Amino acid sequence: MNQKIVIAGLGLIGGSLAKAFQKYSECEVCGFDRDGGALSAALSCGAIDKAATGDDIRSADCLFLCLYPQAAIDFITEHLPLIRPGCIVTDTCGIKAEICRTLPKLAAEHGFLFVGGHPMAGKEQNGFAASDADLFLGASYLIVPCGAPQRAVDFLKAVAVELGFGGTVVTTPEHHDRMIAFTSQLPHVLACAYVMSPRCPEHPGFSAGSYRDVSRVANINETHWTELLIDNRKALTEELEELICNITEIKNAVALGEAETLRGLLRKSRLVKERLGESCK
Amino acid sequence: MNQKIVIAGLGLIGGSLAKAFQKYSECEVCGFDRDGGALSAALSCGAIDKAATGDDIRSADCLFLCLYPQAAIDFITEHLPLIRPGCIVTDTCGIKAEICRTLPKLAAEHGFLFVGGHPMAGKEQNGFAASDADLFLGASYLIVPCGAPQRAVDFLKAVAVELGFGGTVVTTPEHHDRMIAFTSQLPHVLACAYVMSPRCPEHPGFSAGSYRDVSRVANINETHWTELLIDNRKALTEELEELICNITEIKNAVALGEAETLRGLLRKSRLVKERLGESCK
Repeated sequence: MNQKIVIAGLGLIGGSLAKAFQKYSECEVCGFDRDGGALSAALSCGAIDKAATGDDIRSADCLFLCLYPQAAIDFITEHLPLIRPGCIVTDTCGIKAEICRTLPKLAAEHGFLFVGGHPMAGKEQNGFAASDADLFLGASYLIVPCGAPQRAVDFLKAVAVELGFGGTVVTTPEHHDRMIAFTSQLPHVLACAYVMSPRCPEHPGFSAGSYRDVSRVANINETHWTELLIDNRKALTEELEELICNITEIKNAVALGEAETLRGLLRKSRLVKERLGESCK
Repeated sequence: MNQKIVIAGLGLIGGSLAKAFQKYSECEVCGFDRDGGALSAALSCGAIDKAATGDDIRSADCLFLCLYPQAAIDFITEHLPLIRPGCIVTDTCGIKAEICRTLPKLAAEHGFLFVGGHPMAGKEQNGFAASDADLFLGASYLIVPCGAPQRAVDFLKAVAVELGFGGTVVTTPEHHDRMIAFTSQLPHVLACAYVMSPRCPEHPGFSAGSYRDVSRVANINETHWTELLIDNRKALTEELEELICNITEIKNAVALGEAETLRGLLRKSRLVKERLGESCK
């Protein structure tokens, strides 16, 4: 793979993509970031070959939008005249509804190809300093075609293979957002709600792996996540209501000392994990 | 350290303690388990020097009860005539209220010394097969003296140093159970409630670290945990009610699209982690 790639946004994901393209492909990587510090850090460590100019955008084979959802849409709107017909535009946003409503329309009007993307990898840290060429090794890459031609989808599948992803899943914006509400947004909300307990500041010495695992992602970027959670409000609200019901059911069995009911509920959960092959017994 | 140790219950914790005593101390380790398979596995791999006889219990310096809470109390009741005055009896139960109500009374009546203990280490797997001499390295060891003389407490502190624990915390049964409701029981309830979502069986391909971390301990031993959760029903119910309130507050902000409120809530959580030095930024 030796295409010309422009990456807009050199944070954790954009920076990691840049480094991964440099490490695992022959692509030319041009970077764009409003933050001069991130841009010069990316240049000086060789994560990007150069800062992207208007000409680079004009001649790009693929443009990666590694920005918050609204910023990704704004970037395209501002640079529309520069994006050539046939250029593959993709994003890395955690929620797909809004971006997959807006960008396919602009793509159709201006002749570029838009395919939504979501690399399922992350870290508690943000920013270029945390980026890592190996962040995506073994991870799942979600591809949301939004009506784009197959060759654009195939290009992203080839990128996934080249950069070491573990696999790709092709899905719709609705199914993507529904699943992400469960797999990613719910754990983030839970982590935040969990550490709000008055017991939290006293936990050292009384805690082990369970505390660490549930609280890990409470170290949140509140601006980014406010946008992501509200963009997915319908699916997330339903998922949260269901979770509250399930916790309440367990809580009632505990409060009333109903051992048989409680054992039945816990057993049900164990069986879910076992059927998924996630049991260690 | 070269005392005679009797370990009753050779599951994950008892088996790991046996192996740790063998690896890191000069103690003689005798084991007891109703399950002949666990006992012979422990013998054949050298985790214990011998199966404990009545004489071993009579001459033990320290008796570790690595059993479910009620079974630990039953073991002491059944073997009372064998336990010599001055013998240090300790347990490894996850909840202290019940055992710390019963055993100090029996200790006072019969002359042995009871000190509650809780090694803060575990695994998703159970049973002797999962036991590991290094399970406790760096972990916290909670000690609940229940009025025992200082020399008994000091003995357990010395055990903690010898077996490689990261530190000890001396506390009361009430504070222990209150903190464990938050640090350990809540994450287990959450994990079980989380995997009850109809989305859970479809998660593969759509999930990464957040799903893995929150769902990990849903692979639960429902009999053991039913006893532990109900034994701590008051503290756990309060903790669960508070968590439900906190999740509901975030859910309402999401459902109503109240970005400022949501950002404020998430920010509060991030600051809790930062003040604890658990931020990675």
